[in-house]
Amino acid sequence: MSNRVQIYDSTLRDGAQAEGIAFSLDDKLMIAQRLDALGVHYVEGGWPNPTNPKDMEFFNRIRELPLENAKVTAFGSTRRANNHPEDDAILNTLLQAGTGVVTLFGKSWELHVTHVLRTTPDENLTLIRDSVAFIASHGREVVYDAEHFFDGYRADPQYAIATLLAAQEGGAGILVLCDTNGGTLTSELRETIEDVKTKITAPFGIHTHNDAGVGVANALAAVETGAVQVQGTFNGYGERCGNANLCSIIPSLELKLDRSSIGPEKLAGLMDVSRFLSEIANVHHDHRQPYVGESAFAHKGGVHIDAMVKQPATYEHCRPELVGNERRFLLSEQSGSAAIAAKLNHLLPGLDKKHPALQRLLRQIKQLEHEGYVFEAAEASFEILARKALGAISDPFRLIGFRTINRKSADGTEVEAIVKVEVGGRVYHTVADGDGPVNALDAALRQGLEPVYPILKDVYLEDYKVRVLSTRDGTAARVRVLIESSDSHRVWNTIGVSENIIEASWIALVDSLTYKLLREGLLTEGEPVLQEEAHA
Amino acid sequence: MSNRVQIYDSTLRDGAQAEGIAFSLDDKLMIAQRLDALGVHYVEGGWPNPTNPKDMEFFNRIRELPLENAKVTAFGSTRRANNHPEDDAILNTLLQAGTGVVTLFGKSWELHVTHVLRTTPDENLTLIRDSVAFIASHGREVVYDAEHFFDGYRADPQYAIATLLAAQEGGAGILVLCDTNGGTLTSELRETIEDVKTKITAPFGIHTHNDAGVGVANALAAVETGAVQVQGTFNGYGERCGNANLCSIIPSLELKLDRSSIGPEKLAGLMDVSRFLSEIANVHHDHRQPYVGESAFAHKGGVHIDAMVKQPATYEHCRPELVGNERRFLLSEQSGSAAIAAKLNHLLPGLDKKHPALQRLLRQIKQLEHEGYVFEAAEASFEILARKALGAISDPFRLIGFRTINRKSADGTEVEAIVKVEVGGRVYHTVADGDGPVNALDAALRQGLEPVYPILKDVYLEDYKVRVLSTRDGTAARVRVLIESSDSHRVWNTIGVSENIIEASWIALVDSLTYKLLREGLLTEGEPVLQEEAHA
Repeated sequence: MSNRVQIYDSTLRDGAQAEGIAFSLDDKLMIAQRLDALGVHYVEGGWPNPTNPKDMEFFNRIRELPLENAKVTAFGSTRRANNHPEDDAILNTLLQAGTGVVTLFGKSWELHVTHVLRTTPDENLTLIRDSVAFIASHGREVVYDAEHFFDGYRADPQYAIATLLAAQEGGAGILVLCDTNGGTLTSELRETIEDVKTKITAPFGIHTHNDAGVGVANALAAVETGAVQVQGTFNGYGERCGNANLCSIIPSLELKLDRSSIGPEKLAGLMDVSRFLSEIANVHHDHRQPYVGESAFAHKGGVHIDAMVKQPATYEHCRPELVGNERRFLLSEQSGSAAIAAKLNHLLPGLDKKHPALQRLLRQIKQLEHEGYVFEAAEASFEILARKALGAISDPFRLIGFRTINRKSADGTEVEAIVKVEVGGRVYHTVADGDGPVNALDAALRQGLEPVYPILKDVYLEDYKVRVLSTRDGTAARVRVLIESSDSHRVWNTIGVSENIIEASWIALVDSLTYKLLREGLLTEGEPVLQEEAHA
Repeated sequence: MSNRVQIYDSTLRDGAQAEGIAFSLDDKLMIAQRLDALGVHYVEGGWPNPTNPKDMEFFNRIRELPLENAKVTAFGSTRRANNHPEDDAILNTLLQAGTGVVTLFGKSWELHVTHVLRTTPDENLTLIRDSVAFIASHGREVVYDAEHFFDGYRADPQYAIATLLAAQEGGAGILVLCDTNGGTLTSELRETIEDVKTKITAPFGIHTHNDAGVGVANALAAVETGAVQVQGTFNGYGERCGNANLCSIIPSLELKLDRSSIGPEKLAGLMDVSRFLSEIANVHHDHRQPYVGESAFAHKGGVHIDAMVKQPATYEHCRPELVGNERRFLLSEQSGSAAIAAKLNHLLPGLDKKHPALQRLLRQIKQLEHEGYVFEAAEASFEILARKALGAISDPFRLIGFRTINRKSADGTEVEAIVKVEVGGRVYHTVADGDGPVNALDAALRQGLEPVYPILKDVYLEDYKVRVLSTRDGTAARVRVLIESSDSHRVWNTIGVSENIIEASWIALVDSLTYKLLREGLLTEGEPVLQEEAHA
């Protein structure tokens, strides 16, 4: 038996059915290229049909792009009950998409045959067989998706298997068993497949959903039982609870089941692609996601951190770098002062753990965390706080005051920010407008700072996130602003917390610019207090 | 064999190890009470130790609260290698917690025995045995958590089983097999348990983590193999990728595996508790979560919706009301105009689907969605939009203009909003301050409206969320504001999108107040355009 498993991605079709997700045509083309570069074997492009021009346009455009690894597939249903295949609009549109592979889905469950197709079980077998045969006769590779296979098998095993045999007779290259409603548990799925595989001769694949929280386990169990293709989506996007998450399945195939899918080299690019998908889909990257979440190798419990320092395998099921992730130690109540001291020691080597200034800093951190600061998400703010508390750096400027004004009238909206700062002994009084108050404030502050620190022109804001901390007080609640900044070489995160969103944004903005100056060595650095006293 | 499975919750201990989660003492007490009311059998309160006063205080306080179903457990490790049990600080502190049940964790894996405990395999067996015996001799029920059991078994099956036997000899009431690093796949876990259960006589339980994305499947497989206790956390909170999610496990036990845990009646309260936990933990409720996510029974694909209307079982693996959830049809590009028309028909019965005003409204909705509006999260805004487009309601006021001013200086921060509106033929010019600009704007607007609509005093804002839509332009990006409002009877959601956070907030605020007036019948209602013309 070959140990090769084909990865079939449905992010562009099933993934786009997720609540809150919609891809533009350009998004879809970019995603297809990233999946191809990662070594995915099939990319399902969508369901081409005359009423959805975006999907048809995708197939026209993707043909012009050079793909190295992936075959693009067009997805659609078997023909309508009363049509001949050659006159059927669905089948003909699938051919027009011009892909080498066509994925046809058909019904395995009498409930669907009767209530949705409104035809007879026998007629359903005929239309599966001749739809597959029609597409295959045009030289296309046919993937047959047996929709609701496990529900159908539960209701009537013989009929469900008869639908597979019809597709097999029609010439399908592979029969894919779908748990469309996602409710089948792993033991039942495994027993079903053990029976089915004795009745078919074509290779089979698996397509699972996560409605019972076992989509990934089901896909892996199917591979152990002989499936040679796994269908799923990146980050598990999909209708309802989502599809089986390929970002969890691929590493387990490669690292735990000794199967070859995209190979170990490309596996190291997995987290990048997962984050790319989150960004394109414009949803939060699930930080708890197995293998590719930011928390997947993050350790917080004091006991865990102590052990990890002694021996990493103690609390890690695989090496994070194999999937492009990294190990992190979190600062928190639980991690305790040992973890904070370890982090500080990295920033300022030679710290004396017992020094009173360090104890003051620890209390200050606890107080800020109590107010809603989360330094685990804003390491640049943490470094600034620590270096200041330990006397190692000066402030780049002194704020005298700022004002933002937001006017709305019949003439439209006008936004202005006025900033007064003292920089290098001189007062700068600046004004700027912007799309919103924070944008205007950013522009005005930079006007004041850039004469002295022209290098700040290189800094741009990559991301700006707002989180309401306590929602019980409505608009009077405390907000947390996180800003991600970049200078094209480096990315850093800063934080601000306040009841006032503008104040919170200001705090995070100032830290962002301060961090750049710190990194460039432009802040006056004194001897760190601790080292001074430790030497004394 | 009894079909009863004990639910052991570790949200307060393992759950609090999740990145970004911290519970206050009051939080912990509230959570314990909600879990008890839901019928959870064990609530693990934390690790009482002298350096963490919050955990000890929890045990003191929880004793005063009447719990109906749950036993509270104190969690801690076996004794230190060189202590006698009666002199060991850890064991004595566990007794001081005063719980009827103590959960002791011990090492099953030589890697940990050698590198973390720094003792010998034989000594580890002794300290497991006598630590369990010491706690049991004080009349406490002992749950023995065999940490890293599956990793230990993989390395040395005999030794791993010997640690279980030591706990059994010490008098443990149950032996819990832990997949602490979360990397064990379901087939291996099942085979391991099949072997282990022939070697022990005490009942056994299961504790899994989700690092390979199969934590829930593993817990269910263990129950099928004979485990009588499942340890996990609500919403799957926990270190790294989290613990096995009890919100997924409990419904599958009850509805799919025919096991009795909290029972069908309390099961209907599951989603409430899951959402309560998200709120207390102050994290987003995972909308894709199996059974209890808002998307778990939400249908978006046009094909799915058509089929669901014909027969709900076609795309649902269980009835949503069994777990306290509900079925939803989403508005989107894919759901198409049939779904929007169905929704409108619910609001305004008797609509003619072909009417030009409806077509205009559909185009308007598509345009707004393109700009970043998501009506699936803001049904009140959708209703207002639809009723206005179809000519059925008037605006409650006309905005002449507003201004917000935010000043920061050495004296502190000052926030002011000025609003000019025409209400019922009269101009109101009002000013208010607030904690932030949106809060001030809300206050000033209400000053202008309440003389005419005093009922607006009943409306308060439950939640205020800000989401940055395109993060590529930093602070100039478009933001989406969602406001949840309530009048103590009803909760509704409204939305605003703009490049300016204040403008976006304003739009959502106005919709929030408008919706209240609409519901109270205080807006002038014309005949809906559509019905009028349809009658003609």
